Amino acid sequence: MRVLGVDPGLTRCGIGVVEGTAGRPLTMVAVGVVRTRTETDTPERLVQIERGLEEWLEAHRPEAVAVERVFSQHNVRTVMGTAQASAVAMLCAARRGLPVALHTPSEVKAAVTGSGRAEKAQVGAMVTRLLRLEAPPKPADAADALALAICHIWRAPAHHRLQQAHQTQRAQQAPAAQRLKGMRR
Amino acid sequence: MRVLGVDPGLTRCGIGVVEGTAGRPLTMVAVGVVRTRTETDTPERLVQIERGLEEWLEAHRPEAVAVERVFSQHNVRTVMGTAQASAVAMLCAARRGLPVALHTPSEVKAAVTGSGRAEKAQVGAMVTRLLRLEAPPKPADAADALALAICHIWRAPAHHRLQQAHQTQRAQQAPAAQRLKGMRR
Repeated sequence: MRVLGVDPGLTRCGIGVVEGTAGRPLTMVAVGVVRTRTETDTPERLVQIERGLEEWLEAHRPEAVAVERVFSQHNVRTVMGTAQASAVAMLCAARRGLPVALHTPSEVKAAVTGSGRAEKAQVGAMVTRLLRLEAPPKPADAADALALAICHIWRAPAHHRLQQAHQTQRAQQAPAAQRLKGMRR
Repeated sequence: MRVLGVDPGLTRCGIGVVEGTAGRPLTMVAVGVVRTRTETDTPERLVQIERGLEEWLEAHRPEAVAVERVFSQHNVRTVMGTAQASAVAMLCAARRGLPVALHTPSEVKAAVTGSGRAEKAQVGAMVTRLLRLEAPPKPADAADALALAICHIWRAPAHHRLQQAHQTQRAQQAPAAQRLKGMRR
Protein backbone atom coordinates (compact mmCIF):
# COMPACT_ATOMS: atom_id res chain seq x y z
CA MET A 1 0.00 0.00 0.00
CA ARG A 2 1.39 3.37 -1.04
CA VAL A 3 0.18 6.40 0.92
CA LEU A 4 0.85 10.10 0.36
CA GLY A 5 0.71 12.10 3.60
CA VAL A 6 0.07 15.85 3.61
CA ASP A 7 0.85 18.18 6.51
CA PRO A 8 -1.11 21.17 5.19
CA GLY A 9 0.12 24.75 5.38
CA LEU A 10 0.23 27.82 3.13
CA THR A 11 3.90 28.63 3.70
CA ARG A 12 5.13 25.04 3.95
CA CYS A 13 2.99 22.10 2.88
CA GLY A 14 4.81 18.91 3.93
CA ILE A 15 4.48 15.88 1.64
CA GLY A 16 5.69 12.34 2.32
CA VAL A 17 5.13 9.10 0.42
CA VAL A 18 5.47 5.78 2.29
CA GLU A 19 4.99 2.24 1.06
CA GLY A 20 4.30 -0.86 3.11
CA THR A 21 1.78 -2.89 5.05
CA ALA A 22 1.08 -3.06 8.77
CA GLY A 23 3.41 -5.46 10.60
CA ARG A 24 6.19 -5.28 8.01
CA PRO A 25 9.07 -2.81 7.56
CA LEU A 26 8.01 0.40 5.81
CA THR A 27 9.82 2.18 2.96
CA MET A 28 10.06 5.90 2.33
CA VAL A 29 9.38 6.61 -1.36
CA ALA A 30 9.84 10.39 -1.30
CA VAL A 31 9.61 13.39 0.98
CA GLY A 32 9.51 17.14 0.38
CA VAL A 33 7.76 20.44 0.91
CA VAL A 34 5.67 22.68 -1.35
CA ARG A 35 6.50 26.25 -0.37
CA THR A 36 4.72 29.50 -1.21
CA ARG A 37 5.80 33.05 -0.38
CA THR A 38 3.98 35.08 2.26
CA GLU A 39 4.08 38.13 -0.06
CA THR A 40 1.98 36.28 -2.66
CA ASP A 41 -1.84 36.68 -2.56
CA THR A 42 -3.72 33.77 -0.98
CA PRO A 43 -5.61 32.76 -4.18
CA GLU A 44 -2.31 32.51 -6.10
CA ARG A 45 -0.69 30.56 -3.22
CA LEU A 46 -3.55 28.04 -3.38
CA VAL A 47 -2.96 27.64 -7.13
CA GLN A 48 0.75 26.99 -6.45
CA ILE A 49 -0.11 24.40 -3.78
CA GLU A 50 -2.55 22.69 -6.15
CA ARG A 51 0.15 22.58 -8.85
CA GLY A 52 2.71 21.15 -6.40
CA LEU A 53 0.33 18.49 -5.09
CA GLU A 54 -0.69 17.49 -8.62
CA GLU A 55 2.99 16.94 -9.49
CA TRP A 56 3.47 14.72 -6.42
CA LEU A 57 0.30 12.71 -7.11
CA GLU A 58 1.26 12.30 -10.76
CA ALA A 59 4.86 11.28 -9.96
CA HIS A 60 4.12 8.83 -7.13
CA ARG A 61 0.62 7.49 -7.85
CA PRO A 62 -0.45 6.75 -4.25
CA GLU A 63 -3.44 4.50 -3.48
CA ALA A 64 -4.61 6.74 -0.66
CA VAL A 65 -4.00 10.22 0.71
CA ALA A 66 -3.78 11.03 4.43
CA VAL A 67 -4.27 14.66 5.47
CA GLU A 68 -3.90 16.17 8.93
CA ARG A 69 -7.29 17.06 10.38
CA VAL A 70 -7.38 20.76 11.19
CA PHE A 71 -9.13 22.06 14.29
CA SER A 72 -10.44 25.59 14.46
CA GLN A 73 -9.55 26.05 18.12
CA HIS A 74 -5.79 25.76 17.48
CA ASN A 75 -3.67 28.83 16.82
CA VAL A 76 -6.17 31.33 15.43
CA ARG A 77 -3.52 33.13 13.34
CA THR A 78 -2.47 30.23 11.14
CA VAL A 79 -5.58 28.04 11.22
CA MET A 80 -7.25 29.67 8.20
CA GLY A 81 -4.23 29.07 5.96
CA THR A 82 -4.00 25.49 7.21
CA ALA A 83 -7.71 24.91 6.51
CA GLN A 84 -7.35 26.38 3.00
CA ALA A 85 -4.27 24.28 2.16
CA SER A 86 -5.96 21.12 3.51
CA ALA A 87 -9.03 21.88 1.37
CA VAL A 88 -6.80 21.95 -1.73
CA ALA A 89 -5.17 18.65 -0.71
CA MET A 90 -8.55 16.95 -0.15
CA LEU A 91 -9.83 18.36 -3.46
CA CYS A 92 -6.83 17.14 -5.50
CA ALA A 93 -7.09 13.63 -4.04
CA ALA A 94 -10.88 13.27 -4.29
CA ARG A 95 -10.88 14.62 -7.86
CA ARG A 96 -8.67 11.64 -8.79
CA GLY A 97 -11.03 9.24 -7.01
CA LEU A 98 -8.44 8.51 -4.30
CA PRO A 99 -9.66 7.72 -0.79
CA VAL A 100 -8.85 10.56 1.62
CA ALA A 101 -8.35 9.93 5.34
CA LEU A 102 -8.08 12.64 7.96
CA HIS A 103 -6.01 11.91 11.06
CA THR A 104 -5.70 14.24 14.04
CA PRO A 105 -2.22 15.32 15.21
CA SER A 106 -2.64 13.25 18.39
CA GLU A 107 -3.68 10.13 16.43
CA VAL A 108 -0.52 10.52 14.34
CA LYS A 109 1.72 11.06 17.39
CA ALA A 110 0.14 8.08 19.19
CA ALA A 111 0.64 5.89 16.11
CA VAL A 112 4.35 6.56 15.68
CA THR A 113 5.52 7.26 19.27
CA GLY A 114 2.92 5.57 21.46
CA SER A 115 1.92 8.89 23.01
CA GLY A 116 -0.64 11.35 21.67
CA ARG A 117 1.24 14.16 23.42
CA ALA A 118 4.74 13.46 22.03
CA GLU A 119 6.88 16.41 21.02
CA LYS A 120 7.96 17.26 17.45
CA ALA A 121 11.50 15.92 18.00
CA GLN A 122 10.18 12.57 19.23
CA VAL A 123 7.96 12.21 16.14
CA GLY A 124 10.98 13.05 13.93
CA ALA A 125 13.15 10.49 15.76
CA MET A 126 10.56 7.71 15.37
CA VAL A 127 9.96 8.50 11.69
CA THR A 128 13.73 8.28 11.16
CA ARG A 129 13.89 4.90 12.92
CA LEU A 130 10.76 3.38 11.33
CA LEU A 131 11.83 4.33 7.80
CA ARG A 132 15.52 3.53 8.49
CA LEU A 133 16.69 7.01 7.44
CA GLU A 134 20.12 8.44 8.18
CA ALA A 135 18.78 11.66 9.71
CA PRO A 136 15.38 13.12 10.63
CA PRO A 137 13.70 14.66 7.55
CA LYS A 138 13.67 18.46 7.60
CA PRO A 139 11.73 20.69 7.93
CA ALA A 140 9.42 19.26 10.63
CA ASP A 141 6.48 19.55 8.17
CA ALA A 142 8.16 16.95 5.95
CA ALA A 143 8.65 14.56 8.90
CA ASP A 144 5.02 15.13 9.95
CA ALA A 145 3.80 14.25 6.45
CA LEU A 146 5.72 10.94 6.63
CA ALA A 147 4.28 10.29 10.11
CA LEU A 148 0.77 10.84 8.68
CA ALA A 149 1.41 8.29 5.92
CA ILE A 150 2.78 5.77 8.46
CA CYS A 151 -0.21 6.36 10.74
CA HIS A 152 -2.55 5.69 7.83
CA ILE A 153 -0.82 2.45 6.81
CA TRP A 154 -0.98 1.16 10.38
CA ARG A 155 -4.59 2.16 10.92
CA ALA A 156 -5.73 0.90 7.50
CA PRO A 157 -5.98 -2.83 8.42
CA ALA A 158 -8.71 -2.14 11.02
CA HIS A 159 -10.53 -0.11 8.40
CA HIS A 160 -10.15 -2.91 5.82
CA ARG A 161 -11.40 -5.57 8.23
CA LEU A 162 -14.49 -3.45 8.81
CA GLN A 163 -15.11 -3.11 5.07
CA GLN A 164 -14.64 -6.86 4.55
CA ALA A 165 -17.05 -7.62 7.39
CA HIS A 166 -19.63 -5.44 5.67
CA GLN A 167 -19.02 -7.19 2.36
CA THR A 168 -19.38 -10.66 3.92
CA GLN A 169 -22.58 -9.54 5.60
CA ARG A 170 -23.95 -8.21 2.32
CA ALA A 171 -22.96 -11.38 0.50
CA GLN A 172 -24.73 -13.51 3.11
CA GLN A 173 -27.83 -11.37 2.90
CA ALA A 174 -27.87 -11.39 -0.91
CA PRO A 175 -29.70 -14.21 -2.72
CA ALA A 176 -27.45 -16.94 -4.20
CA ALA A 177 -27.52 -15.44 -7.73
CA GLN A 178 -26.21 -12.10 -6.50
CA ARG A 179 -23.61 -13.55 -4.17
CA LEU A 180 -20.75 -13.46 -6.66
CA LYS A 181 -21.38 -9.80 -7.43
CA GLY A 182 -21.37 -8.98 -3.73
CA MET A 183 -18.06 -10.77 -3.21
CA ARG A 184 -16.42 -8.88 -6.03
CA ARG A 185 -17.12 -5.47 -4.54
CA MET B 1 -17.79 45.30 -15.19
CA ARG B 2 -19.16 41.80 -14.50
CA VAL B 3 -18.48 40.38 -11.02
CA LEU B 4 -19.25 36.94 -9.60
CA GLY B 5 -19.80 37.03 -5.83
CA VAL B 6 -19.37 33.92 -3.67
CA ASP B 7 -20.80 33.50 -0.16
CA PRO B 8 -18.80 30.37 0.70
CA GLY B 9 -20.24 27.40 2.59
CA LEU B 10 -20.11 23.61 2.38
CA THR B 11 -23.87 23.04 2.62
CA ARG B 12 -24.92 26.13 0.66
CA CYS B 13 -22.46 28.14 -1.43
CA GLY B 14 -24.27 31.28 -2.62
CA ILE B 15 -23.36 32.60 -6.08
CA GLY B 16 -24.48 35.87 -7.66
CA VAL B 17 -23.41 37.60 -10.86
CA VAL B 18 -23.88 41.38 -11.19
CA GLU B 19 -22.99 43.70 -14.03
CA GLY B 20 -22.50 47.46 -13.91
CA THR B 21 -20.25 50.35 -12.94
CA ALA B 22 -20.23 52.54 -9.87
CA GLY B 23 -22.72 55.42 -10.10
CA ARG B 24 -24.99 53.74 -12.63
CA PRO B 25 -27.89 51.26 -12.19
CA LEU B 26 -26.72 47.68 -11.69
CA THR B 27 -28.07 44.55 -13.38
CA MET B 28 -28.40 41.07 -11.93
CA VAL B 29 -27.12 38.53 -14.45
CA ALA B 30 -27.79 35.35 -12.44
CA VAL B 31 -28.15 34.07 -8.89
CA GLY B 32 -28.14 30.62 -7.33
CA VAL B 33 -26.70 28.22 -4.81
CA VAL B 34 -24.37 25.23 -5.06
CA ARG B 35 -25.54 22.70 -2.47
CA THR B 36 -23.83 19.60 -1.10
CA ARG B 37 -25.23 17.03 1.31
CA THR B 38 -24.02 16.85 4.92
CA GLU B 39 -23.87 13.03 4.65
CA THR B 40 -21.24 13.28 1.88
CA ASP B 41 -17.54 13.19 2.87
CA THR B 42 -15.82 16.59 2.93
CA PRO B 43 -13.33 15.82 0.10
CA GLU B 44 -16.20 14.82 -2.21
CA ARG B 45 -18.21 17.90 -1.18
CA LEU B 46 -15.25 20.08 -2.17
CA VAL B 47 -15.12 18.37 -5.57
CA GLN B 48 -18.85 19.09 -6.04
CA ILE B 49 -18.35 22.76 -5.09
CA GLU B 50 -15.44 23.03 -7.53
CA ARG B 51 -17.58 21.52 -10.29
CA GLY B 52 -20.46 23.91 -9.51
CA LEU B 53 -18.22 26.98 -9.45
CA GLU B 54 -16.54 25.96 -12.71
CA GLU B 55 -19.95 25.76 -14.39
CA TRP B 56 -20.86 29.26 -13.14
CA LEU B 57 -17.51 30.74 -14.23
CA GLU B 58 -17.80 29.05 -17.62
CA ALA B 59 -21.40 30.17 -18.17
CA HIS B 60 -21.05 33.80 -17.02
CA ARG B 61 -17.40 34.69 -17.71
CA PRO B 62 -16.97 37.34 -14.97
CA GLU B 63 -14.04 39.79 -15.03
CA ALA B 64 -13.51 39.50 -11.27
CA VAL B 65 -14.54 37.27 -8.37
CA ALA B 66 -15.47 38.60 -4.91
CA VAL B 67 -15.37 36.14 -2.00
CA GLU B 68 -16.44 36.74 1.59
CA ARG B 69 -13.42 36.95 3.87
CA VAL B 70 -13.67 34.27 6.56
CA PHE B 71 -12.58 34.97 10.12
CA SER B 72 -11.53 32.18 12.42
CA GLN B 73 -13.12 33.75 15.50
CA HIS B 74 -16.68 33.43 14.12
CA ASN B 75 -18.81 30.37 14.88
CA VAL B 76 -16.22 27.66 15.53
CA ARG B 77 -18.54 24.87 14.32
CA THR B 78 -19.03 26.05 10.75
CA VAL B 79 -15.87 28.10 10.19
CA MET B 80 -13.78 25.19 8.88
CA GLY B 81 -16.32 24.31 6.19
CA THR B 82 -16.56 27.98 5.22
CA ALA B 83 -12.77 28.29 5.01
CA GLN B 84 -12.57 25.15 2.86
CA ALA B 85 -15.33 26.29 0.47
CA SER B 86 -13.75 29.75 0.17
CA ALA B 87 -10.38 28.13 -0.62
CA VAL B 88 -12.01 26.27 -3.53
CA ALA B 89 -13.63 29.51 -4.77
CA MET B 90 -10.31 31.41 -4.62
CA LEU B 91 -8.53 28.52 -6.34
CA CYS B 92 -11.05 28.27 -9.22
CA ALA B 93 -10.87 32.03 -9.88
CA ALA B 94 -7.08 32.39 -9.59
CA ARG B 95 -6.52 29.33 -11.80
CA ARG B 96 -8.36 31.22 -14.58
CA GLY B 97 -6.23 34.30 -13.99
CA LEU B 98 -9.21 36.24 -12.62
CA PRO B 99 -8.58 38.87 -9.93
CA VAL B 100 -9.97 37.75 -6.56
CA ALA B 101 -11.09 40.26 -3.95
CA LEU B 102 -11.97 39.39 -0.37
CA HIS B 103 -14.51 41.59 1.41
CA THR B 104 -15.50 41.22 5.07
CA PRO B 105 -19.19 40.79 5.98
CA SER B 106 -19.23 44.28 7.54
CA GLU B 107 -17.68 45.86 4.42
CA VAL B 108 -20.44 44.25 2.35
CA LYS B 109 -23.20 45.35 4.75
CA ALA B 110 -21.82 48.88 4.89
CA ALA B 111 -21.63 49.04 1.08
CA VAL B 112 -25.25 48.05 0.42
CA THR B 113 -27.08 49.34 3.53
CA GLY B 114 -24.82 52.09 4.86
CA SER B 115 -24.30 50.21 8.15
CA GLY B 116 -21.69 47.53 8.85
CA ARG B 117 -24.01 46.02 11.47
CA ALA B 118 -27.12 45.68 9.30
CA GLU B 119 -29.24 42.55 9.68
CA LYS B 120 -29.72 39.85 7.02
CA ALA B 121 -33.22 41.09 6.10
CA GLN B 122 -31.95 44.63 5.54
CA VAL B 123 -29.20 43.37 3.20
CA GLY B 124 -31.80 41.31 1.29
CA ALA B 125 -34.11 44.33 1.00
CA MET B 126 -31.35 46.59 -0.34
CA VAL B 127 -30.13 43.96 -2.83
CA THR B 128 -33.74 43.66 -4.06
CA ARG B 129 -34.02 47.44 -4.47
CA LEU B 130 -30.57 48.01 -6.03
CA LEU B 131 -31.04 45.26 -8.62
CA ARG B 132 -34.75 46.12 -9.15
CA LEU B 133 -35.89 42.57 -8.34
CA GLU B 134 -39.47 41.60 -7.59
CA ALA B 135 -38.62 39.80 -4.33
CA PRO B 136 -35.52 39.24 -2.17
CA PRO B 137 -33.42 36.37 -3.56
CA LYS B 138 -33.60 33.20 -1.46
CA PRO B 139 -31.88 31.60 0.37
CA ALA B 140 -30.02 34.37 2.23
CA ASP B 141 -26.72 32.95 0.91
CA ALA B 142 -27.81 33.86 -2.64
CA ALA B 143 -28.70 37.44 -1.58
CA ASP B 144 -25.35 37.70 0.24
CA ALA B 145 -23.48 36.63 -2.89
CA LEU B 146 -25.21 39.40 -4.88
CA ALA B 147 -24.38 41.91 -2.11
CA LEU B 148 -20.71 40.84 -2.35
CA ALA B 149 -20.70 41.45 -6.10
CA ILE B 150 -22.36 44.88 -5.65
CA CYS B 151 -19.85 45.78 -2.92
CA HIS B 152 -17.02 44.86 -5.24
CA ILE B 153 -18.33 46.95 -8.16
CA TRP B 154 -18.76 49.97 -5.89
CA ARG B 155 -15.34 49.59 -4.25
CA ALA B 156 -13.55 48.84 -7.54
CA PRO B 157 -13.18 52.48 -8.79
CA ALA B 158 -10.94 53.41 -5.83
CA HIS B 159 -8.89 50.31 -6.55
CA HIS B 160 -8.68 51.17 -10.27
CA ARG B 161 -7.57 54.74 -9.61
CA LEU B 162 -4.77 53.34 -7.45
CA GLN B 163 -3.66 50.97 -10.24
CA GLN B 164 -3.75 53.73 -12.83
CA ALA B 165 -1.69 56.01 -10.60
CA HIS B 166 0.93 53.23 -10.34
CA GLN B 167 0.90 52.79 -14.12
CA THR B 168 1.33 56.52 -14.76
CA GLN B 169 4.17 56.60 -12.25
CA ARG B 170 5.87 53.65 -13.93
CA ALA B 171 5.40 55.20 -17.38
CA GLN B 172 6.96 58.45 -16.20
CA GLN B 173 9.88 56.62 -14.62
CA ALA B 174 10.48 54.43 -17.68
CA PRO B 175 12.77 55.68 -20.48
CA ALA B 176 11.00 56.96 -23.62
CA ALA B 177 11.49 53.72 -25.58
CA GLN B 178 9.75 51.65 -22.90
CA ARG B 179 6.95 54.12 -22.29
CA LEU B 180 4.52 52.52 -24.72
CA LYS B 181 4.98 49.10 -23.08
CA GLY B 182 4.32 50.58 -19.67
CA MET B 183 1.11 52.22 -20.85
CA ARG B 184 -0.18 49.02 -22.31
CA ARG B 185 -0.02 47.14 -19.01
